[in-house]
Amino acid sequence: GLLKIDHVGIAVADLDEALRFYAENFGLHCVHQETNEEQGVREAMLAVGDGSGPRLQLLAPARPDSAIAKFIDRSGPGLQQLAYTVADVETAADALRARGLRLLYDTPKRGTAGSRINFVHPKDAGGVLVELVEPA
Amino acid sequence: GLLKIDHVGIAVADLDEALRFYAENFGLHCVHQETNEEQGVREAMLAVGDGSGPRLQLLAPARPDSAIAKFIDRSGPGLQQLAYTVADVETAADALRARGLRLLYDTPKRGTAGSRINFVHPKDAGGVLVELVEPA
Ligand SMILES: [Co+2]
Ligand SMILES: [Co+2]
Repeated sequence: GLLKIDHVGIAVADLDEALRFYAENFGLHCVHQETNEEQGVREAMLAVGDGSGPRLQLLAPARPDSAIAKFIDRSGPGLQQLAYTVADVETAADALRARGLRLLYDTPKRGTAGSRINFVHPKDAGGVLVELVEPA
Repeated sequence: GLLKIDHVGIAVADLDEALRFYAENFGLHCVHQETNEEQGVREAMLAVGDGSGPRLQLLAPARPDSAIAKFIDRSGPGLQQLAYTVADVETAADALRARGLRLLYDTPKRGTAGSRINFVHPKDAGGVLVELVEPA
């Protein structure tokens, strides 16, 4: 099942500007940053409070034809995804497929810090892009 | 500052249908339910995993002229807000006002389970409706 909320993803147009905004206004700081070339995204993980809970994942387009760029074009910046930690992303995905939910990928992709991820189609999850995260 | 993520709010058209969906597909169960007449919302809090982390707050319209009804009309169901726990909602709000961010209310409103809440205008928070929650 879903072990916990892993992170909340927020689409931003400009990652550096967003990092400054979160640091200056909310006192939230980056604990990990990377570029996922396959997904076309520059991302930063921000810790909240003592850092033991879910993170904020800021997601900015690394190229114009990325899913994040298309999201921002359609909906503007803002809440974009909700990620849960699972023990095994393939088991979790199969259980959801068995209930008729569509997963975006047939096999898991690489996520943040070497995690294995998949996503539930938002149309099958009440409009929420649900990410399943199996940590490395 | 922001102590932790308190909850993630998800707008749903039908609360009972959404509760069934989350229980059957994701194994997430309701730990608190209430109607906030002032906000015009029927809400349910779902625990994730061992329940020690942030909750999901499912938000359904209690009347057609509510903020949640308008959100669903504009954007469809889905991720609607991100709430953080703070020690004192007035102190937290004043600090944000001092940085030029707009708060939706001049004085805190009643939130879930007797909490005191306010919201940052999404246009001042990168498109995210940010809730500040001072628990009862
Ligand atoms: Co993510
Ligand atoms: Co809320």
